[in-house]
Amino acid sequence: MKKEIVVIVGSGMMGSALAFPSRENGHTVRLVGTHLDKEIIDECRKTGKHPKFSTPFPSGVEYYQIEELDDALKNADMVIGGVSSFGVDWFADYVLPRIPKGVPVLTVTKGLIDLQDGSLISYPEYWEQKCKEKGIAVDLNAVGGPCTSYELVAHDQTVVSFCGRNIDTLKHLKEVMQTSYYHINITTDVIGIETAVALKNGYALAVALTIGVNQKEYGIDSELHYNSQAAVFGQATKEMTKLLSLRGADTIDNRAVGFGDLYVTVYGGRTRLVGILLGRGLDIDQAQKELSGVTLESLVVARRVARAIRIKAGKGELDLNDFPLLMHVDDILTKKVKVDIPWDEFTK
Amino acid sequence: MKKEIVVIVGSGMMGSALAFPSRENGHTVRLVGTHLDKEIIDECRKTGKHPKFSTPFPSGVEYYQIEELDDALKNADMVIGGVSSFGVDWFADYVLPRIPKGVPVLTVTKGLIDLQDGSLISYPEYWEQKCKEKGIAVDLNAVGGPCTSYELVAHDQTVVSFCGRNIDTLKHLKEVMQTSYYHINITTDVIGIETAVALKNGYALAVALTIGVNQKEYGIDSELHYNSQAAVFGQATKEMTKLLSLRGADTIDNRAVGFGDLYVTVYGGRTRLVGILLGRGLDIDQAQKELSGVTLESLVVARRVARAIRIKAGKGELDLNDFPLLMHVDDILTKKVKVDIPWDEFTK
Repeated sequence: MKKEIVVIVGSGMMGSALAFPSRENGHTVRLVGTHLDKEIIDECRKTGKHPKFSTPFPSGVEYYQIEELDDALKNADMVIGGVSSFGVDWFADYVLPRIPKGVPVLTVTKGLIDLQDGSLISYPEYWEQKCKEKGIAVDLNAVGGPCTSYELVAHDQTVVSFCGRNIDTLKHLKEVMQTSYYHINITTDVIGIETAVALKNGYALAVALTIGVNQKEYGIDSELHYNSQAAVFGQATKEMTKLLSLRGADTIDNRAVGFGDLYVTVYGGRTRLVGILLGRGLDIDQAQKELSGVTLESLVVARRVARAIRIKAGKGELDLNDFPLLMHVDDILTKKVKVDIPWDEFTK
Repeated sequence: MKKEIVVIVGSGMMGSALAFPSRENGHTVRLVGTHLDKEIIDECRKTGKHPKFSTPFPSGVEYYQIEELDDALKNADMVIGGVSSFGVDWFADYVLPRIPKGVPVLTVTKGLIDLQDGSLISYPEYWEQKCKEKGIAVDLNAVGGPCTSYELVAHDQTVVSFCGRNIDTLKHLKEVMQTSYYHINITTDVIGIETAVALKNGYALAVALTIGVNQKEYGIDSELHYNSQAAVFGQATKEMTKLLSLRGADTIDNRAVGFGDLYVTVYGGRTRLVGILLGRGLDIDQAQKELSGVTLESLVVARRVARAIRIKAGKGELDLNDFPLLMHVDDILTKKVKVDIPWDEFTK
């Protein structure tokens, strides 16, 4: 295929990891740090390696500071949005208006925003609204599915979903990015994919709680127990399915993306760590202090989804008894209740 | 509640593990070994401990050899069937006819039997047919859901489902068996629960393949990779859902039991081991040799389900392209093809 110019904005782990398949496919890859990433870009320029990865970038990746964004965007064929959920508004206000007309965007940012009426919308939907208000048109696409950045860098076999409104754009993005280890499903069900993969963060935290509870019971170095993890995992699939259903997006494919992503996220780092700390008995302030400096999207999404469904329950649109796990996680995060998984609620 | 007499037939790990909640609830518990369990029962009598468990039985559990089965069954209030899938016919022919009329049976045996027309039936259905032929009536119930025996013995929080035709029997069995750590859902959807928990064996093997593949790639002591496990897990949930649907049993609850059970089985011992060995490059004969002596129900169920759906596909009742993962597992087991996960099939 034709070699393209791929611009990645945000040099966090996931954005940076996508430099690997795209550069290995021979495209020009420009990795642009945000204003928070100055040191990362400095180090990449010096060493050719992202500070969080053990493998260097493929040779030829170009590095840009945020002040050089306009230069980086020159003649871009696609833009990858690699900001965390804490950079969503900055991405809308600073980056999206600068993207040349007609250049498709693929974002890795995961999350949901709750509206006052209890609705939940995904970031692509949120950005589309913002762009509409600004009078600009951007072809927004997103990537979801089970993929930890460091395993993508290690060329572990990975299957993800690209979603967007335009199937031809998606086919093109797939062609640019797919490799022998990065397998891409494409779908126009943006709401489904983005809801599934956002929800998994909150529920992965819930599964990880049981690991901490068992460490408290049997010792921090005790063997992992799986019965309790699996019981919470099963309950999580039920609640995620009901939440997908609320968005009209309960399909076999969306569920598979969400459950696969839940599976990997239980093992995937920060969310697992905070869940374990809470399970051991720390409250959320203590747990966050222990993990200072890491972004905890799981906390944000759990609180937002809980807030949304409480509003919907108040309006009689759903039954909170269908979500005992999420309600408990929310109570842990917002009311600092002690972890006490409501096992018997799962058997009703 | 009234103290009952609980008779467990089969002193394998899962049957024996159920002696813990029942005896801790104060019931009389009689553990009866099969003709294959003589040494286990001898050791239990000597030490009060099952050779595979690190924790002794609660005091007061009574041990019987198979020749003493009739004695053990005297005044029984319920019978737990703890045979493996290799003892299904023996259980039907030798045990079921001896069970006093009206005494409910709860079986732990997991599996599916494929019929010549491509139908799949669960063991409770198979036993019901056999009992009908013999002119005897047995109230057959079964337990499914994520529960490894050694974690149950360790009092890990566990959520399972009891299924059967009679909801009053199920309520009673739940009352006998439930404890502060053993939580029991009850349902009359026998087909759904038994199909879900049988299928998980074949698919857990599939997830484990990726662990072996990565060990071959990165070294046996390399860190676990999860992207590839999660991709197969997601695909497994799709294929399991379609197989449940074929049995008219695709419900949110059945899926949750199946997916929770899949989660625990990936980590649960024998199935994981054989999957890893196959992933490393051994063929099925070599893998079985390496694991001599262990029962591998995952192999049986994968082959049977594959055989059944090939027949149904031949009749135009389904599309084999919906089951690329199961087809590959079956090819590995029956045609000894090398492990080569069909990743791109998962994105179609």
